[in-house]
Amino acid sequence: MRSDKNFQRRRRITAIDVAKAAGTSQSAVSRAFTANSSLSKDLRERIITAARELGYRPNAIARSLTTRRSRIIAVVMSYLNNQFYPDVLEKLLDRFQKADYQILLFTSERSGLSDPLFEQIMRYQVDAAVLASTALSSRLAGECRAAGVPVVTLNRTIDDPDISSVTGDNQRGGYEIGRFLSAAGHKNLGFIAGIKQSSTNRDRELGFRQALREAGMPNPQYALGNYSFDETVKAARHMLSQHIRPDGIFCANDHMAIACMDVARYEFGLNIPKDLSIIGFDDVGAARWKAYDLTSYSQPIEMMVDNTFETVMALIEQPEQPARHLVVPGKLVVRSSARLPLS
Amino acid sequence: MRSDKNFQRRRRITAIDVAKAAGTSQSAVSRAFTANSSLSKDLRERIITAARELGYRPNAIARSLTTRRSRIIAVVMSYLNNQFYPDVLEKLLDRFQKADYQILLFTSERSGLSDPLFEQIMRYQVDAAVLASTALSSRLAGECRAAGVPVVTLNRTIDDPDISSVTGDNQRGGYEIGRFLSAAGHKNLGFIAGIKQSSTNRDRELGFRQALREAGMPNPQYALGNYSFDETVKAARHMLSQHIRPDGIFCANDHMAIACMDVARYEFGLNIPKDLSIIGFDDVGAARWKAYDLTSYSQPIEMMVDNTFETVMALIEQPEQPARHLVVPGKLVVRSSARLPLS
Repeated sequence: MRSDKNFQRRRRITAIDVAKAAGTSQSAVSRAFTANSSLSKDLRERIITAARELGYRPNAIARSLTTRRSRIIAVVMSYLNNQFYPDVLEKLLDRFQKADYQILLFTSERSGLSDPLFEQIMRYQVDAAVLASTALSSRLAGECRAAGVPVVTLNRTIDDPDISSVTGDNQRGGYEIGRFLSAAGHKNLGFIAGIKQSSTNRDRELGFRQALREAGMPNPQYALGNYSFDETVKAARHMLSQHIRPDGIFCANDHMAIACMDVARYEFGLNIPKDLSIIGFDDVGAARWKAYDLTSYSQPIEMMVDNTFETVMALIEQPEQPARHLVVPGKLVVRSSARLPLS
Repeated sequence: MRSDKNFQRRRRITAIDVAKAAGTSQSAVSRAFTANSSLSKDLRERIITAARELGYRPNAIARSLTTRRSRIIAVVMSYLNNQFYPDVLEKLLDRFQKADYQILLFTSERSGLSDPLFEQIMRYQVDAAVLASTALSSRLAGECRAAGVPVVTLNRTIDDPDISSVTGDNQRGGYEIGRFLSAAGHKNLGFIAGIKQSSTNRDRELGFRQALREAGMPNPQYALGNYSFDETVKAARHMLSQHIRPDGIFCANDHMAIACMDVARYEFGLNIPKDLSIIGFDDVGAARWKAYDLTSYSQPIEMMVDNTFETVMALIEQPEQPARHLVVPGKLVVRSSARLPLS
């Protein structure tokens, strides 16, 4: 043991110390800190008292070797600059912490990991993995599942129907946005897409196009924003410079809609919604900021996180149960960035 | 072993399996996967080959029991709705992941943890803790340090000089903002404060008041926003309803400055910066959004994260070394939300 006046490193109290103090065995100490284990009431109390006096803390990591439960959930998330994800993360943390699980956080695309993400996740013997917003979802989900780690994708579905997912109602949302814009008498609509191969973008676009077809409108003008602010700035510039300028644009998320509004107002001098309607998706906090006051289709984060939590718990208990695919309904939140339907 | 057509749970390959296949002992396998351990080159290669063929992965958790290094860093962070923190988190993740450390993420205030945060952190035998933006910093930092866990506070200092810290140059920033506003000929300045007892708020306010004194200006009008959007909306309403309305307001961070701009423009019909100058602090992404185009004092996140990483690594290597208190210089980023100094 080292000790100096600036620093003291306490020796960690072990189960052996507690066993000695309580006059019992190490295995009894271990059982005293395990729910539903057999131990006389007297002995348990003697152990707990000794543990408290010594400042003993059961070591979650040592325990995970015997229980094969680490009580760690891996969460993989990119795009933290899109406010939707920090909000999701905050609620996930809250929900899992309350159930005495901890979150080991990983980013993917931009991380430059020396090992593949899968290897990193496996090393920590996580009880389950939640994959949100990562382009690696498909491969990673398959690898985790094959290794016996339950997986839930959040705000994404992947091709494998055996991987559970929780999403907002993307297709319905895109559809309602299309109906809202066509009912307001817009003539030329545009769509600024997120990442093309993401399920969120695909489903939102699908619903949007369906509504336009039903209303007898032509296909929307199309540009790719890739869920990136800077790329959306370029996409909006391109779209608004066309000979026939759209009078309404659906951006596949709010983060892109905000970029699009800035370009329309400050580079093209357009009045929103008089000259141009803009609608987003997610209903993030910034959609409520008065400078944007963005009409958007909501993704109820709390309910999505609750469903994710429950699915993860169910899969930890019974890994072989059939996958769940939960779609959480949202609603169109009408603010002032888009013209209202003609009545 | 269970197996059905929908689900296969692979048995985890252990060091014992690898030892058998390589015709050696479990301890040799363990040494083969530990840097700088003694083992003949031949035997090491035989073990690595066997491990690769079996798909063996060294278990980070089991190893942490012998090495007493978990390669896990606890990060405690609240306020993820203020964009500064997700940006910090993204860079922290990136930096630590590249060095083969993982981040166990905790929130504090709003989490309703069953056990105190300290107990939760200790259970996972983390190698170090980074505390950012939490009101619990002081007590938690002391507890961790007393238990031998190195601690660095990020974007906060606490009273204990033995706890290392990394911050932006808060006092200098507040001072430059005060000079900028007084040089532009403002007559009545206001200050909307963040959390009163936070070091960031205290230092920003200190610098601001000093600049006003030096310029012979009266003390600023004062309201409390507590780093909360909604509370700042109320604070701004109050301040802008006063008989003598301020013509310039310094908000202790950008998140509050945005709330303040919305109230000024959309509830009081004020032109920014003609009727009212507003300056924030942090230079978050939204400060660059054209609808706000916010003048702000920057906190260089990349450099703050680099310094935090290096301090954490140094403390893990040599826990008893003296604490470091690093202040990362920022700069005033002039945009259009505040009037320019008269030349």
